[in-house]
Amino acid sequence: MNQIVECVPNFSEGRRQDVIDGIVGTMQEVVGVRILDVQADVDHNRCVVTMVGELEAVAEAAFRGIARAAQLIDMNHHRGAHPRMGATDVVPLVPVRGVTMADCVAAARELGRRVGEELGVPVYLYEEAATRPGRRNLADVRRGEYEGVRDAIATDPTRAPDFGPSRLGSAGAVAIGARPPLVAFNAYLNTADVEPAQAIARAVRHSSGCFRFVKALGLLVEGQAQVSMNLTDFRQTPVHRVLEAIRSEASFYGLQVTHTEIVGLLPSEALIDSARFYLQLDGFSTQQVLENRLFGEE
Amino acid sequence: MNQIVECVPNFSEGRRQDVIDGIVGTMQEVVGVRILDVQADVDHNRCVVTMVGELEAVAEAAFRGIARAAQLIDMNHHRGAHPRMGATDVVPLVPVRGVTMADCVAAARELGRRVGEELGVPVYLYEEAATRPGRRNLADVRRGEYEGVRDAIATDPTRAPDFGPSRLGSAGAVAIGARPPLVAFNAYLNTADVEPAQAIARAVRHSSGCFRFVKALGLLVEGQAQVSMNLTDFRQTPVHRVLEAIRSEASFYGLQVTHTEIVGLLPSEALIDSARFYLQLDGFSTQQVLENRLFGEE
Repeated sequence: MNQIVECVPNFSEGRRQDVIDGIVGTMQEVVGVRILDVQADVDHNRCVVTMVGELEAVAEAAFRGIARAAQLIDMNHHRGAHPRMGATDVVPLVPVRGVTMADCVAAARELGRRVGEELGVPVYLYEEAATRPGRRNLADVRRGEYEGVRDAIATDPTRAPDFGPSRLGSAGAVAIGARPPLVAFNAYLNTADVEPAQAIARAVRHSSGCFRFVKALGLLVEGQAQVSMNLTDFRQTPVHRVLEAIRSEASFYGLQVTHTEIVGLLPSEALIDSARFYLQLDGFSTQQVLENRLFGEE
Repeated sequence: MNQIVECVPNFSEGRRQDVIDGIVGTMQEVVGVRILDVQADVDHNRCVVTMVGELEAVAEAAFRGIARAAQLIDMNHHRGAHPRMGATDVVPLVPVRGVTMADCVAAARELGRRVGEELGVPVYLYEEAATRPGRRNLADVRRGEYEGVRDAIATDPTRAPDFGPSRLGSAGAVAIGARPPLVAFNAYLNTADVEPAQAIARAVRHSSGCFRFVKALGLLVEGQAQVSMNLTDFRQTPVHRVLEAIRSEASFYGLQVTHTEIVGLLPSEALIDSARFYLQLDGFSTQQVLENRLFGEE
């Protein structure tokens, strides 16, 4: 594989296994696409598929998955705890290796055009692929969910889709975009008190004035305080820098980090970058990693 | 690629580029072998080739390289600063991914048998492939170098080869073996005094009583003290554990590590293991590294 692009489409079905299998099966037929994970959630009534491959292949698989979901899922009858506006709700393209963000943005826009024109499903471009600032944030795009978008799309010009008709059918609308790899990183503290975790979350997250690419919450998980985070661009806000800030803030409360965890997958680059920091490997090149020398071979 | 085996044959030619090209060229012809690096040293009159591929492919390439070097290099006329006993001097097979040490030992022995029987070149099995304890260490196997081995091989039963004739021709003898990946790791100190570097080297290396898989020397490099190391099995003596010991010892002298370096290549596993340590990722699985999920695919 010369490129690695991750694509994580979210479909509004978490209960009917035959529907999930049908959607995943049609995507799997595309040569060069590898399905790494399928997570279905009954309460959310939603499934999240993680697939990788070269850009063209994952975009083709996403198109087929969107087409199939539009046939199999009727949003007029969809109920679930997770916000949603379409049978295929959101499709991010994520550059991992050997491909740029600009490539993924271009592919997201081309995929959006095909979905709008060939399937007649309204498409909103979001995050790095957004065509206007107010559409970068998925929550803004999805405001009102299926029912709200159905009413607003025809009447409110600011809600007009980037591609496809200004009218919602039973497949709803889909958000298609490009974003950096997401790292779900949690740090546990040696306390059963949630308050220090909440204070530390505020101390590191962007919305409270700190690291630009960190979202954080303080939680209690099985009786232990946890700083729960999404690192939305580890290349700009690296894992080790966030952890060192958490350790420093924790010490103010006389607390320590007992352990941390990565939820799901992350690119090797994120960990190698942290190893480089802690080992003081200042002149290190990623081309010194043996596996990286094999990447791109046929 | 389903397996990654590294093979690092050393040839006794560092001056005649046409000879080096001839040997490398014949190895490169093997399908599935990738030559990552060729380092020729004029003073040593030696070249070190780094290649990777599946086990069968790299063993075949090594065989062809040994055959070619036997044709092109006459050890009776070889002079160089580096100890050597053969046109192909040493051939280690190194398991990197998807292959065990036992697999590499078996392949080294089969390669040795072919070289002895088909090429008539005496073969000593060394390191993990050694057939007796006194042959694990390459320096012991190579004692006396080409000229010394030539005299001893026929007369001293303890110097009889594992394969091939007990008689040295112009190609000399070759050591073939299997070993873990080697990590060349150096730590620099904020002093121009070599003595603390030498003391720290003694404090961390196996020969002076410390880490089993560390060889270390204190050196001055461009006026800066350096602890120069080979980590001969990072899976058992990891990089971070050695660095933490060096930092601790350095603080005794009121010194600090200014930076470190990796010379050449290393498997991603070595760095991911150190990231896991410093980030306190105690439940982390290497299957959470996205690229590792792609390894082994066709």
